[in-house]
Amino acid sequence: MNARTPPTTNITLRVDGERLWNSLMELGAIGATPKGGVCRLALSDLDKQGRDLVCAWAVSEGMSVTVDQIGNVFMRRSGRNNALAPVVTGSHIDTQPTGGKFDGNYGVLAGLEVIRTLNQHQIETEAPIEVAVWTNEEGSRFVPVMMGSGVFCGAFSLEHAYAATDTAGLNVRDELARIGYIGEQQCGDHPIGAYYEAHIEQGPVLENADIVIGVVPAVLGLTWYDCTVTGFESHAGPTPMEIRKDALQVATYIMQEVVAIALRYPPYGRGTVGMVQVMPNSRNVIPGQVKFSIDLRNVSPELLVSMNRDLENFLAKMRSDTGLGIELQRVSDFPPCPFHPACVSNVRAAAELLGYPTMDVVSGAGHDAIYAARLAPAGMIFVPCKDGVSHNEIEDAKPEHLEAGANVLLHAILASAVRV
Amino acid sequence: MNARTPPTTNITLRVDGERLWNSLMELGAIGATPKGGVCRLALSDLDKQGRDLVCAWAVSEGMSVTVDQIGNVFMRRSGRNNALAPVVTGSHIDTQPTGGKFDGNYGVLAGLEVIRTLNQHQIETEAPIEVAVWTNEEGSRFVPVMMGSGVFCGAFSLEHAYAATDTAGLNVRDELARIGYIGEQQCGDHPIGAYYEAHIEQGPVLENADIVIGVVPAVLGLTWYDCTVTGFESHAGPTPMEIRKDALQVATYIMQEVVAIALRYPPYGRGTVGMVQVMPNSRNVIPGQVKFSIDLRNVSPELLVSMNRDLENFLAKMRSDTGLGIELQRVSDFPPCPFHPACVSNVRAAAELLGYPTMDVVSGAGHDAIYAARLAPAGMIFVPCKDGVSHNEIEDAKPEHLEAGANVLLHAILASAVRV
Repeated sequence: MNARTPPTTNITLRVDGERLWNSLMELGAIGATPKGGVCRLALSDLDKQGRDLVCAWAVSEGMSVTVDQIGNVFMRRSGRNNALAPVVTGSHIDTQPTGGKFDGNYGVLAGLEVIRTLNQHQIETEAPIEVAVWTNEEGSRFVPVMMGSGVFCGAFSLEHAYAATDTAGLNVRDELARIGYIGEQQCGDHPIGAYYEAHIEQGPVLENADIVIGVVPAVLGLTWYDCTVTGFESHAGPTPMEIRKDALQVATYIMQEVVAIALRYPPYGRGTVGMVQVMPNSRNVIPGQVKFSIDLRNVSPELLVSMNRDLENFLAKMRSDTGLGIELQRVSDFPPCPFHPACVSNVRAAAELLGYPTMDVVSGAGHDAIYAARLAPAGMIFVPCKDGVSHNEIEDAKPEHLEAGANVLLHAILASAVRV
Repeated sequence: MNARTPPTTNITLRVDGERLWNSLMELGAIGATPKGGVCRLALSDLDKQGRDLVCAWAVSEGMSVTVDQIGNVFMRRSGRNNALAPVVTGSHIDTQPTGGKFDGNYGVLAGLEVIRTLNQHQIETEAPIEVAVWTNEEGSRFVPVMMGSGVFCGAFSLEHAYAATDTAGLNVRDELARIGYIGEQQCGDHPIGAYYEAHIEQGPVLENADIVIGVVPAVLGLTWYDCTVTGFESHAGPTPMEIRKDALQVATYIMQEVVAIALRYPPYGRGTVGMVQVMPNSRNVIPGQVKFSIDLRNVSPELLVSMNRDLENFLAKMRSDTGLGIELQRVSDFPPCPFHPACVSNVRAAAELLGYPTMDVVSGAGHDAIYAARLAPAGMIFVPCKDGVSHNEIEDAKPEHLEAGANVLLHAILASAVRV
């Protein structure tokens, strides 16, 4: 990592917030929904339209465009020394079925706005700069999520991604070819010197604290479980309280413990029960079985392991106290992802340079930056979104916050790519 | 009510347990399911077959058969004084879609077995005795439940019952006519001197206590609610614990309080949450809304009112403690039904006469006896069923217990009808 360039040379350099906002609105019109959101599923005709628009903007800025085998798009602005690995920024432009205009799109267009600003001010950098559009981050139409960056970093194979099908039975390879975004470059055969991603927070922390810039030290790791409590189904009328084996009652204590565990691991512990299935789910029948999800998150592997151990211990106690069957099945694991100290420091320094108030905000959700961080030093910049709502048509963000985030991105990139 | 006849005259009179069992098996063959249960829905062809079989048995015992407008069947054995209102016993022969051989059927065939025993021993009674087959007790195909006895006692109108339709759009009046069980006798134009109903317990109390005869002092009253907790739906990752409005977590405390309330009103308090709906019910989304059922029961109106007040008070506290929206909607009410002291006493005395161990067992479930009790002194006799399971194809009961219950029914009826 290169040291940040001296503040004095950059103090006045700022992006054009209105130009950024207009580009967000123009891209947001492709797949716009009546409620003000966007439905632009990965590898759909609308995704192609969005990609075409963004690539056209890049070309008009003199950038070269490369597409790899999984459809990731890299839009490149040359540096003075093109033998250096590029400083990459970006995100995705596919959306949830009822998604918003900012999730992902902001990261791509903030990157493009950085390039436009550099071009406008005829600023050269030592390393080349690239803006990436990663394929299918949302995973709504095809799983796994974060598909483009996942294949790129080798988290799973190209063949695995190609074989994924949507509910209509269409697969990723055919759909990539159909929309003309199946490139020739081998995935991952593309060096990265450093990676930055600007994103709306998708949570309420910045808004609640009235802070403009979130410096993201890490993405929380998570463990997902299915927990099944098995009691004995019986009639709510004739069965006295003292001989019941009520699976739901036992489940409620576990559900509360999930939250209690998270509270014992502040500030980044999270515990959520989001999905519950009661059997037979009848008003006058004592539940015989209850199945529910458990989502535990924290910032370090050690803390997450400790939270998981607490859960196991509690379940062992509940089994012995109640005599009911309690099964815990691990569904998924995602390790915590700390970002690189140099990138985190560059983001913080850029915000300070620009006079924006900052706070550290861990990312609770996954982003392409997690996979990029496996290959190169990486960092993220968060800006507030209204009520912390995302993955929703009512997702919203303020132009001045989006502009501030793009300014921070600009100066973080300049710190890594080195203004000359 | 007449006093019980002196023990010395009845001490040796007992039903034929094997004859009773064989009749249960023969009736249970109509609509038999592969798993050993019965599917004989109200007013189906199978219901007609079952009714025809039972009526043929009655006729062969010299009984007269009357059918009323809602299809209730009254099979009558004359007494010495036929101006007296008959002592009636009975139950129903319709079943749940995956029902058992004993629920309802036992009450009808135990009554028939009493008649067969009296005929066999040429025993005359002062009052006539009737065995009733009430229409559509289960309510599986047509609601309301306990339809025949409900119309009979005036709980709701004949027209209301006639208009009820099944999922195929067929109505009760047409289906009654189709199977030939729409009678001319006006509902309720049929005096009852006293009413007894023998039934499997449908709960585990007798089996757990290893007691053969349950004396039923009352049927529990109930209040049914839908409770809705409204929080704020947000992403499980980015939302810190301390600012969540997790509707499910708040709901779990209410679910636990439902049980706590019941435990504060022993021995007959019951509290059950049987049905839960979580929205959006997604693994990584904090539930924004949770809707669940509450079922509170007790033996007296005062206790039930007090339990309901406890619930209201708790919800008021939860609203103020959590700030979340908590709505409580009353869905249904059924008042407690105490049985007549004379009938309860006759059941207890009959069991003592026969040397069966007894205990008091309230009925948590509804029975035709509740409606009969609105017209005449009534009582019920419970016998154990395996694991307390009913409304299930694996419903089971022991021949010796069924025989014991029929013996008690015999002597309770003799006490009311007066052996001469």
